[in-house]
Amino acid sequence: MSKKVLVLPGDGIGPEIIAEAVKVLNLANEKYNLDLELVEGELGGAAIDKHGVPLADSTLALAREVDAVLLGAVGGPKWDTIEKSIRPERGLLKIRSELGLFANLRPAILYPQLADASSLKPEVVSGLDILIVRELTGGIYFGTPRDQVVLENGERKAFDTLPYSESEIRRIARVGFDMAMVRNKKLCSVDKANVLASSQLWREVVEEVAKDYPEVELSHMYVDNAAMQLVRAPKQFDVVVTDNMFGDILSDEASMLTGSIGMLPSASLDSNNKGMYEPCHGSAPDIAGKGLANPLATILSVSMMLRYSFSQAGAADAIEQAVSDVLDQGLRTGDIMSEGMRKVGTAEMGDAVVAAL
Amino acid sequence: MSKKVLVLPGDGIGPEIIAEAVKVLNLANEKYNLDLELVEGELGGAAIDKHGVPLADSTLALAREVDAVLLGAVGGPKWDTIEKSIRPERGLLKIRSELGLFANLRPAILYPQLADASSLKPEVVSGLDILIVRELTGGIYFGTPRDQVVLENGERKAFDTLPYSESEIRRIARVGFDMAMVRNKKLCSVDKANVLASSQLWREVVEEVAKDYPEVELSHMYVDNAAMQLVRAPKQFDVVVTDNMFGDILSDEASMLTGSIGMLPSASLDSNNKGMYEPCHGSAPDIAGKGLANPLATILSVSMMLRYSFSQAGAADAIEQAVSDVLDQGLRTGDIMSEGMRKVGTAEMGDAVVAAL
Ligand SMILES: CC(C)[C@H](C(=O)O)[C@@H](O)C(=O)O
Ligand SMILES: CC(C)[C@H](C(=O)O)[C@@H](O)C(=O)O
Repeated sequence: MSKKVLVLPGDGIGPEIIAEAVKVLNLANEKYNLDLELVEGELGGAAIDKHGVPLADSTLALAREVDAVLLGAVGGPKWDTIEKSIRPERGLLKIRSELGLFANLRPAILYPQLADASSLKPEVVSGLDILIVRELTGGIYFGTPRDQVVLENGERKAFDTLPYSESEIRRIARVGFDMAMVRNKKLCSVDKANVLASSQLWREVVEEVAKDYPEVELSHMYVDNAAMQLVRAPKQFDVVVTDNMFGDILSDEASMLTGSIGMLPSASLDSNNKGMYEPCHGSAPDIAGKGLANPLATILSVSMMLRYSFSQAGAADAIEQAVSDVLDQGLRTGDIMSEGMRKVGTAEMGDAVVAAL
Repeated sequence: MSKKVLVLPGDGIGPEIIAEAVKVLNLANEKYNLDLELVEGELGGAAIDKHGVPLADSTLALAREVDAVLLGAVGGPKWDTIEKSIRPERGLLKIRSELGLFANLRPAILYPQLADASSLKPEVVSGLDILIVRELTGGIYFGTPRDQVVLENGERKAFDTLPYSESEIRRIARVGFDMAMVRNKKLCSVDKANVLASSQLWREVVEEVAKDYPEVELSHMYVDNAAMQLVRAPKQFDVVVTDNMFGDILSDEASMLTGSIGMLPSASLDSNNKGMYEPCHGSAPDIAGKGLANPLATILSVSMMLRYSFSQAGAADAIEQAVSDVLDQGLRTGDIMSEGMRKVGTAEMGDAVVAAL
């Protein structure tokens, strides 16, 4: 029986980069007999325009049915003035939560061909290869109560709640340790245990899980120190596991160390490795529709999908190799352009990867 | 009548760096007829050892009485296994909260003499001069309820609360705008308004306060983007205002951009400019007692104290100039050492500043 992939182009540059990623996916599908069937839907602004909400029930039902989701990006100024509860981001948060995609994997890899693009000194980042494992369906993103109220004295007050349960921490810690096992066996758990109750439990549970992974060298770091160490000496890290909010901040910081966020894919997995795959970058409304966007992060997200959700390591490797090949050929979109290279648009870059594959 | 300064050496390298800062303060006191009287107390581990708690009531009473507090640093492995509620950091959080020191000013300045120390490329950080204004007595650091409980099913669960009231946001926003007015008139307010209720109120109130500062160019940025932009192009910022937790993370990240966190002072002010002054770095237990620590951040904290709490801009400028002079002379502690410079210890560096002053 064929496996299904739901494709959600989303907003801004989403449709353009997804078009290239789908070319690559279709070719891999054929070449490796993957027997994948693609269906399309809307998320974010595109869903608001069509269905009035950023994630329609019918799309969510489809997402539950399929084996993997490929997402472009969501959001843009067009929907910035819309009522908060139905903004584009809400669709993204809802699909993560409803599908139980608690494990967000965000690699920060420096491509040797793009070493110059980093704002850090070459010796600080050369060979950088970190994996941030971010908890994605708990913590302050989804905790209740959360509200804005007016106090008796007429003053407004707002509050959020940051909750974590043992089982939520345990399952994401396991992902962290599992990833460390197939990499360099070093895991750094990041929290703020000197201040937060939730972080104290986080640290306790991570310590408990560590007993099952005697080969992994575990360390703990406060989030403020982690934000510093990522700038000072990022290569000290192998796998970093952290909560939803800290992971949001640190994974963006880490991805920017490479200077080429247009190259970085991500995976969000549930407990059965069903996943949603998307580039780390956003919908870049300023360059949307111009054929300028870099499709490589989305193409590499296809590779992650084949690896994690379909256990097709061979096809995944081949796509990564093809991306590396086009970089070797000197092709660059505007965001990663440097002297002596050949500047290409979105479609030309996608076609080059297809050709290399 | 003479003004009083409470000196809290604290733990680790605290006593060593404070000794040098006090030399400088005493000289400035004499030279500029400041009529300051110094009293000493304990905070953190030192207070635990002497009083059994990280901040004794008598010390807190003294802190309320004086006009400014000069702090070294707190914490160390010796007190890591102590019961959580009386760890060294608790003393720090308590004194901030009890004295109402809601405005934490953390400059991130690149000293031209130390330009090489940064892990970022020179062109990205040369001339860097950012001020992070962090809310220090509210938010998730102090919000209740916060607890760890055991659920009916036997599972542990922990939670924290992130509250902000209109008046808390308004007063820190004013500090941000006031600082922008005496600098380059650019303020960036950092929040996570696409996810958090508290951040939505934060943004609303900052917008309201902005009406009183038509000359200041205000922007808003999500915290994940701010963590990226600090790495990508930090010079785009002038003043950044943000909440307690985001400020903890971003100010540490920003300070590390300069490569010389041993150089950076900080001020924590109440609504009458009474303040506590301390270096941005920690207690560095690994080098404590060896005479290796860099006293310049603490000496520059004295300068901030004279500027903000005692309105002695002349004396403050003179101390900053003296620090710049010793750097020009080529003196360096280990943390900022580079080729061709002269390596000195804590006391020698302090003495050099005294001589330059
Ligand atoms: C758009 C936003 C809600 C989202 C998040 O904060 O999770 C984004 O920043 C991300 O990291 O995927
Ligand atoms: C020691 C710790 C509680 C403190 C904080 O988080 O505020 C420190 O990191 C700081 O920034 O002064």
